[in-house]
Amino acid sequence: MATYKILLLPGDGIGPEVAQEVSKVLAWFTRAGIAQFETETDLVGGAAIDAHGVPLSEAAMNRAKAADAVLFGAVGGPKWAGVSYAKRPEAGLLRLRKDLGLFANLRPAICYPALADASALKRELVEGLDIVIVRELTGGVYFGEPKEIVTLEDGQKRAVDTQVYTTGEIERIAAVAFDLARKRRNKVASAEKHNVMKSGVLWKETVTRLHAEQYSDVGLEHVLADNCAMQLVRNPKQYDVLVTDNLFGDILSDVAAMLTGSLGMLPSASLGAVENGTRRALYEPVHGSAPDIAGQNLANPIAMIGSLAMALRYSFGLLKAADQLESAITRTLASGTRTRDIAAPGANAVGTAEMGDAIVREL
Amino acid sequence: MATYKILLLPGDGIGPEVAQEVSKVLAWFTRAGIAQFETETDLVGGAAIDAHGVPLSEAAMNRAKAADAVLFGAVGGPKWAGVSYAKRPEAGLLRLRKDLGLFANLRPAICYPALADASALKRELVEGLDIVIVRELTGGVYFGEPKEIVTLEDGQKRAVDTQVYTTGEIERIAAVAFDLARKRRNKVASAEKHNVMKSGVLWKETVTRLHAEQYSDVGLEHVLADNCAMQLVRNPKQYDVLVTDNLFGDILSDVAAMLTGSLGMLPSASLGAVENGTRRALYEPVHGSAPDIAGQNLANPIAMIGSLAMALRYSFGLLKAADQLESAITRTLASGTRTRDIAAPGANAVGTAEMGDAIVREL
Ligand SMILES: CC(C)[C@H](C(=O)O)[C@@H](O)C(=O)O
Ligand SMILES: CC(C)[C@H](C(=O)O)[C@@H](O)C(=O)O
Repeated sequence: MATYKILLLPGDGIGPEVAQEVSKVLAWFTRAGIAQFETETDLVGGAAIDAHGVPLSEAAMNRAKAADAVLFGAVGGPKWAGVSYAKRPEAGLLRLRKDLGLFANLRPAICYPALADASALKRELVEGLDIVIVRELTGGVYFGEPKEIVTLEDGQKRAVDTQVYTTGEIERIAAVAFDLARKRRNKVASAEKHNVMKSGVLWKETVTRLHAEQYSDVGLEHVLADNCAMQLVRNPKQYDVLVTDNLFGDILSDVAAMLTGSLGMLPSASLGAVENGTRRALYEPVHGSAPDIAGQNLANPIAMIGSLAMALRYSFGLLKAADQLESAITRTLASGTRTRDIAAPGANAVGTAEMGDAIVREL
Repeated sequence: MATYKILLLPGDGIGPEVAQEVSKVLAWFTRAGIAQFETETDLVGGAAIDAHGVPLSEAAMNRAKAADAVLFGAVGGPKWAGVSYAKRPEAGLLRLRKDLGLFANLRPAICYPALADASALKRELVEGLDIVIVRELTGGVYFGEPKEIVTLEDGQKRAVDTQVYTTGEIERIAAVAFDLARKRRNKVASAEKHNVMKSGVLWKETVTRLHAEQYSDVGLEHVLADNCAMQLVRNPKQYDVLVTDNLFGDILSDVAAMLTGSLGMLPSASLGAVENGTRRALYEPVHGSAPDIAGQNLANPIAMIGSLAMALRYSFGLLKAADQLESAITRTLASGTRTRDIAAPGANAVGTAEMGDAIVREL
């Protein structure tokens, strides 16, 4: 039986609660003899600031590098609002992305049939929605230098962030999108602002060339990021795979997630390059740390458990186990089990732990 | 009777058609003795490229500077897709914004009751929606330097865009938002990414300080731009005035516009600083040039006519005339007159010219 090393970084807010449910599922897979998981747990975000004064300790970073996959909960909360920019909780997550080289962020936006009515959009626009946003995650304005605030002679301050992309960075993320599309409905939309940004010009040019040279069998459409945001609201089902840069991806993937009405249910995968047959990877729910409901057994653990399903698929090659877990989630929902965020107004809701237990029972 | 100088820049695609309807309305106001309008017309965008090889001639730029207000249609289309970056149609619009100093872009997102069902969102979420996005328009990544593509030694290219904001730029746009909120529901939400961007840190800090010093009577909320995009989809009515930077404003205002179901109906104003009691201003519909329906008398002229109403209000101080024009639009809609974009499936639709005539009749 193969053994996989997992680093669990529950983080802040509801992170620890939803991570707890993932541990139950891992225990079930081990008992069922599907694989052996060696799980270590460490701190990240505000929890790490409280313990070590930094949002990610060197020890945790080294454990992440040694793991086959990192499962990440969520970070941040009002408690750390006053922390300096360099040490804020998010810096822990950004460092993991950068130092593990996780350039490809896959964010599926799926509308679960049982939840189509929870969407803000009309049912017919989102029912059956199944798109994936492929977001570049280690470049762009998130990491470009200079990134600074300087004080000018007249006392004013001047803040600068720098959006940088190279041909190679664009090619490798576009290749991820095209490869993924081939296994799906074979359509890629690429979003940028080439009418305003030079990085958009290079983005469009590079995607176009790569497509012509290696992926001409895949449908390709270019769309301006502002128009793309509109189109996601107007008619999201027109898309299959949507590839875009770090900042546009941050916004567009949140719009797409919200459309589904299932924000508490959406997982994500952040993947590095394949080297010697393996790739670094981090899996995390799309939702945040939700400090307002933390510690009350109210959070929906499905996004986190779904992130484990993505790890089974992309990091461990346990495709059958991944399918099994995802269909256990679907059956649990179909049976009417609901946490508060997805329950109909007035309907009965179960807690975080009960939802985890129900999914394990369906396995 | 006062005389106002208007420069009409119809531009490309449906621009000339919708501009034509504005001329009818101006003629009516002149006949009614409300004011005298001296209207000049010039080329911008693709039309200017075709005539002069540049998207805005020096003569047109000078006329814009001399005018009391510029009324702008729309620019761009597939015909000019191959034009160089420096001369692309959009560059004409960007130059007008920059050289006229139009730092404040006001984009109301209003859901017309008669059209609430046209929204992708459920009726109850958008019915009665009335928010204004205040977008910074002359700074940020649109204009920051360096903005370039360089070829590296290994043959790769590297593209750079620079997001720059100074304290002063943030203060003046925030002041516009606070002043506007005082005349409305007295609430401002300020959107940035202070968790990732230094410009976001300075933005949040500056807005917070200005609020404490001069606007503590106005409600203020800070929201991350990605979360803001989500919230606009989840529950747009939570906002009143939303202030944000140039790039986030581009995307968030398009999301907000699409929510209303009335994209063809939304005007915008781009305003400069008040100097000697006057301010430079440009008014334009939120929609684009829609080349697919250009020249067919299909476009909805309401966004363009609504932009004139904003000019009457903000540039000419003709508040009563502005109200009169806006209520003529509302009555025309209430009477069931619809262009194709807002007609119920299968219902009768009128053309661009007929809609303009109907609005003039209601005046
Ligand atoms: C927490 C924050 C730094 C992060 C981002 O901006 O990338 C989050 O919004 C996300 O999308 O994962
Ligand atoms: C045409 C384009 C340059 C422009 C922008 O990006 O600002 C447009 O999208 C807008 O919002 O007015």
